[in-house]
Amino acid sequence: MNRIRLGMVGGGKGAFIGAVHRIASRIDDRFELVAGALSANAERAAASAAELGIAADRSYADYKEMARVEAGRQDGIQAVSIVTPNHMHAGPVIAFLEAGISVICDKPLAATLEQAQSIADAVAASKAHFVLTHNYTGYPLMRQAREMIARGDLGTIRVVQAEYAQDWLASNVESTGNKQAVWRTDPAQAGAGGAIGDIGTHAFNLLGFVTGLRPSALAADLHMFGEGRLVDDNAHILLRFEGGAKGMVWASQVASGNENGLRLRIYGDKGGIEWGQENPNVMTFAPLGQPKQLLTRGGAGLGGGAGNWTRIPPGHPEGYLEGFANVYTDAADLISGNGNGALLPGIEAGLDGMWFIDACVRSSRGDGVWIPRDT
Amino acid sequence: MNRIRLGMVGGGKGAFIGAVHRIASRIDDRFELVAGALSANAERAAASAAELGIAADRSYADYKEMARVEAGRQDGIQAVSIVTPNHMHAGPVIAFLEAGISVICDKPLAATLEQAQSIADAVAASKAHFVLTHNYTGYPLMRQAREMIARGDLGTIRVVQAEYAQDWLASNVESTGNKQAVWRTDPAQAGAGGAIGDIGTHAFNLLGFVTGLRPSALAADLHMFGEGRLVDDNAHILLRFEGGAKGMVWASQVASGNENGLRLRIYGDKGGIEWGQENPNVMTFAPLGQPKQLLTRGGAGLGGGAGNWTRIPPGHPEGYLEGFANVYTDAADLISGNGNGALLPGIEAGLDGMWFIDACVRSSRGDGVWIPRDT
Amino acid sequence: MNRIRLGMVGGGKGAFIGAVHRIASRIDDRFELVAGALSANAERAAASAAELGIAADRSYADYKEMARVEAGRQDGIQAVSIVTPNHMHAGPVIAFLEAGISVICDKPLAATLEQAQSIADAVAASKAHFVLTHNYTGYPLMRQAREMIARGDLGTIRVVQAEYAQDWLASNVESTGNKQAVWRTDPAQAGAGGAIGDIGTHAFNLLGFVTGLRPSALAADLHMFGEGRLVDDNAHILLRFEGGAKGMVWASQVASGNENGLRLRIYGDKGGIEWGQENPNVMTFAPLGQPKQLLTRGGAGLGGGAGNWTRIPPGHPEGYLEGFANVYTDAADLISGNGNGALLPGIEAGLDGMWFIDACVRSSRGDGVWIPRDT
Amino acid sequence: MNRIRLGMVGGGKGAFIGAVHRIASRIDDRFELVAGALSANAERAAASAAELGIAADRSYADYKEMARVEAGRQDGIQAVSIVTPNHMHAGPVIAFLEAGISVICDKPLAATLEQAQSIADAVAASKAHFVLTHNYTGYPLMRQAREMIARGDLGTIRVVQAEYAQDWLASNVESTGNKQAVWRTDPAQAGAGGAIGDIGTHAFNLLGFVTGLRPSALAADLHMFGEGRLVDDNAHILLRFEGGAKGMVWASQVASGNENGLRLRIYGDKGGIEWGQENPNVMTFAPLGQPKQLLTRGGAGLGGGAGNWTRIPPGHPEGYLEGFANVYTDAADLISGNGNGALLPGIEAGLDGMWFIDACVRSSRGDGVWIPRDT
Repeated sequence: MNRIRLGMVGGGKGAFIGAVHRIASRIDDRFELVAGALSANAERAAASAAELGIAADRSYADYKEMARVEAGRQDGIQAVSIVTPNHMHAGPVIAFLEAGISVICDKPLAATLEQAQSIADAVAASKAHFVLTHNYTGYPLMRQAREMIARGDLGTIRVVQAEYAQDWLASNVESTGNKQAVWRTDPAQAGAGGAIGDIGTHAFNLLGFVTGLRPSALAADLHMFGEGRLVDDNAHILLRFEGGAKGMVWASQVASGNENGLRLRIYGDKGGIEWGQENPNVMTFAPLGQPKQLLTRGGAGLGGGAGNWTRIPPGHPEGYLEGFANVYTDAADLISGNGNGALLPGIEAGLDGMWFIDACVRSSRGDGVWIPRDT
Repeated sequence: MNRIRLGMVGGGKGAFIGAVHRIASRIDDRFELVAGALSANAERAAASAAELGIAADRSYADYKEMARVEAGRQDGIQAVSIVTPNHMHAGPVIAFLEAGISVICDKPLAATLEQAQSIADAVAASKAHFVLTHNYTGYPLMRQAREMIARGDLGTIRVVQAEYAQDWLASNVESTGNKQAVWRTDPAQAGAGGAIGDIGTHAFNLLGFVTGLRPSALAADLHMFGEGRLVDDNAHILLRFEGGAKGMVWASQVASGNENGLRLRIYGDKGGIEWGQENPNVMTFAPLGQPKQLLTRGGAGLGGGAGNWTRIPPGHPEGYLEGFANVYTDAADLISGNGNGALLPGIEAGLDGMWFIDACVRSSRGDGVWIPRDT
Repeated sequence: MNRIRLGMVGGGKGAFIGAVHRIASRIDDRFELVAGALSANAERAAASAAELGIAADRSYADYKEMARVEAGRQDGIQAVSIVTPNHMHAGPVIAFLEAGISVICDKPLAATLEQAQSIADAVAASKAHFVLTHNYTGYPLMRQAREMIARGDLGTIRVVQAEYAQDWLASNVESTGNKQAVWRTDPAQAGAGGAIGDIGTHAFNLLGFVTGLRPSALAADLHMFGEGRLVDDNAHILLRFEGGAKGMVWASQVASGNENGLRLRIYGDKGGIEWGQENPNVMTFAPLGQPKQLLTRGGAGLGGGAGNWTRIPPGHPEGYLEGFANVYTDAADLISGNGNGALLPGIEAGLDGMWFIDACVRSSRGDGVWIPRDT
Repeated sequence: MNRIRLGMVGGGKGAFIGAVHRIASRIDDRFELVAGALSANAERAAASAAELGIAADRSYADYKEMARVEAGRQDGIQAVSIVTPNHMHAGPVIAFLEAGISVICDKPLAATLEQAQSIADAVAASKAHFVLTHNYTGYPLMRQAREMIARGDLGTIRVVQAEYAQDWLASNVESTGNKQAVWRTDPAQAGAGGAIGDIGTHAFNLLGFVTGLRPSALAADLHMFGEGRLVDDNAHILLRFEGGAKGMVWASQVASGNENGLRLRIYGDKGGIEWGQENPNVMTFAPLGQPKQLLTRGGAGLGGGAGNWTRIPPGHPEGYLEGFANVYTDAADLISGNGNGALLPGIEAGLDGMWFIDACVRSSRGDGVWIPRDT
């Protein structure tokens, strides 16, 4: 067994998503974290590196140096995880791609369309791989749902209801020093989208991943309920898809009582499915005119499907970290040449997400005017 | 105890909602059904009347004659239930109101705005009472929610998510003789609204009943998925409320796997509530920053509230018929002069519903343009 | 339509179960309450009767007189509901049976085995009918389950888990004047069983109704947690059935947080079902090796079954009162000669329940010794 | 950061629980797997070791040699995971303890009481640590429940309902080559207990962990439903606790439709809690006389508690592997001298479990006679 040598940019002490990426990379033992630019502050970077067991000479304060040096080492990293705030994705992503090192980047792709496009150009120009961690696609039952829809179990899809509701911004916690809240509500760091960028893109990505539908247009009504807040904390979005299906997306960070209420419901002319992230090991499937079924992760009667991306028997719950690990493990297969990455969100998913954010903002400023996909 | 003498227009053999009204009127023993124009066909009317124990001389084939005769009897009916299809509400409603007999009318108010206005005029001119059976307002926990919001338990309401999803029109059952489907998908009988009229008005009414919010505008995307269908079977609606709250309404009759998925979720700056009609004896209440609570109908710690409209101890479920009966029992109090009908939907609720249907149709024809309330 | 003329013994002002019986008798409009001995106190009896619309000359203070007079009237009652405390069942039941009037009696059958036997003798000697309101058998999905098991959908039954948990006696409310608690915890009125008599018999009856299994023996560990309480408030019971199946019954009135947690789970070698009374419109069915199904009352794909005992479409919940009404409506069919009462609990169910109570008490006094059924 | 050097005995290719231990050890990055006797077959041991990245010279075919050699190396293992079938625990556990190497052992402790006692003697004689992986104690909400009960939130505990239901042995899969089924139904490998040993001990351990109650006696009714099966596949057990509380345990491997239905319900005189393993991130807490609360892992209003053993925000589910990892991480703290292991199941828990198995078998053979704890 050869573990993939992994680096990380961002994710020093106190960061949230960096730690998640590290656990996800470890669960199936396919990566070994050996280098990092964990902070732009050299001292803090070194301290975090030491804590994580990264050798001192492979702790960098500057991602550009890291890309250059690691690309030159025989035992240099083969992949890097980019876990910085949105506005700091483009720089390191491009640097590592140019250095021939594969990139696993947190979502959304970037803070601006320009940054996103420059990343897309770099991906096109590089032989290295690019993976965007829309991690909810790693949940086994979401992959099961995708399979079922692709093979026609639901018939022609008509209606998609997606939502992602939280309540952690119901109060103005950004004004009381919540570090996560500060950058996520700052347009300079997060981009033009608040809830739509942070969680709405997840819902939007997931519904596309599962259904295979392409949006043709959207209309949005964004709002900032938090006093003085500069980005949306609640978004109501209507979707139209190529082929005639219709959808709604609700993304909110002010829905009191919701923790991470990502929920997906899909209805075709032959059946429907419903799934919620907070109890991800079960999904209902209702074949039209027959009793609803409770499908469990790897459970009775499913065959293949979800069972392919699971470590333990049904009834023993897997969760968020295992779903995230599925993305990492698929990335390991891709990077090591053992897989085609067919299930992995990449640059197209990233650009779709950037369109989603931008189109929501434009529609909402236009009082809910429909924004076609090709714009 | 004096039961109120009740008549019924419509509701002969094979009808659905007429039987529901009759059971609802019986549950608390406040009404006695003594007269009816159960069908426009005299023979069928008589047969249905006989089956229901209505004396032969009080079975009418013509509602006008019924209104005239009953108004003239010393033991004539004090109230009448109108359970005909939408386009046949106005005639009997006006006739009975003019005869001084109180009316309990099924929803929506009418098939057209003109009919609705003529009903409103008759209500204004009559000393008799008018009740519209938006029966979901009779569920004890919906009344509990209304109380809680009125007294500020949720703070300022920000977001309302309402939906009513069914699947019985996922196939074109109207073409295979389903009687309910035939008239409900026929614009001449149902009016311009399909799903929005049949079930969307319920969701719209209920969210207003519970929150007390007044809509300022809506935007809608209606669709007919059933081949050749002339009225919407799926509706995606955005709402704005006076004071700044936002909402979404989803009404669908093609959502495979949904039976009567009426669901209401309301979020304020101090808390949120969530409730679903299919298991109506429980509601979650999440005070912001505290554990979510499971409130049960008449259950521990609630005091008054839902317990006021319930017949049996918590844990023994009441259902749709008991909720409907609460509307009838309140109507009995109102008609007998023992109550003020404060919780009863009346003519304003009816006109609101007609605006909702009309505004949805206009918005959707205008590609989702916002329609203000005052139009 | 001819309603059955019904009388009632017990059920005056402030009583709980009497009101339930009356609503249940009204829902399907098959009974008309015309006589009563609603209280042993003549004045109170008359006041309650007046409130219920019973003519003054048919309000009795003495059930014996009522049986005699009503049997002699041409328009006398055809059936009577006995809703007195347990120790006062035998007297009126026997009196009415002897007068040739059918009896609908609340459970358990009696307070003592002797009373039970005398009732059984009267049933055997009378041409009138006897129905015991183990009302949970009226839930449509319990009848569906019975059908499914009878036709082999679950294969050979192996394990039965039944429970009925409440918490209303977690505190000593009988010492603070709760009328229901006073008589239900008094051995002189309730009999030797507390929780086992009040709710355990329901669980025991229901599991037999659904599975068709006959118990061969039981072992019990009863306890009184309430200080100074004279009857059990928590019971742990092991069951063995003819044919080799095994079971457990838990009945408790001190399980904090439980309202009316009657729950039944049955497992055979081909499948299992699970159902809970508090949300009675759904039942899971797990065919071994296939996904679990959610069966709804009258819902998709069931055919006949539960749909035969339901008034409204699936997704519109029916509850406790409608389940109770199903028992009454079946009783109406039986009494009017239109049905065979095959689903109605009768004297055998009553004697089974009395054995259950007595055997639990004997076993528990014998430190959990197994008590065979034939004793 | 210094990872603890870990070895493993058992857990070669195709084994189930070995892989689980390895993932659990990796999640928080506190262990490094560097040695193994993964199979008694040297070739297979070597192949598995290579696959896991264990150096060839640290792959052993004999655990005794492994203990000797590793104890002698400067970089030798500090801890070893024993993941062999039950009857092969005692040998390696004792060998490593005698070599001064800490042991993390799968449950139950052993196949026989004699083996168990010899392990206990070795634990007493060694300075190394001994941890038994009753992993369900690692679920954050089970630790939360333990805290709540210890501080009196539920008052005096009265009733405990524990169950662990599966269906994987509903058919005789041991006769069709299912490797897990073969050894788990073989008394020579598993010991005298089937379901009671494999899963019953988990339920028994967990209820003791959470409540702090000590059993005073049990009575059991065991059964083998599988044809020709030599150990129980369904067990009904009554419990009595010191201080007067009562309990029931149901363990089954033939309950069609159950995957890993470990469920715990605890009722005191001030409140009750209910929790199920299949959706472990939520627990209900019902303070008597107040609305039931939904407590989530690390969620609103809990303070400390479950939040102390969690990696990601509430609403992002953690599962079985993270719960298992909590046990490993606590073990790392204990072994590295940074913790007291107060929450870790050790030798006492192991002996309790062995008593449970043995007492169940003796009671059942004695037709359900009560077996006191001191025997």
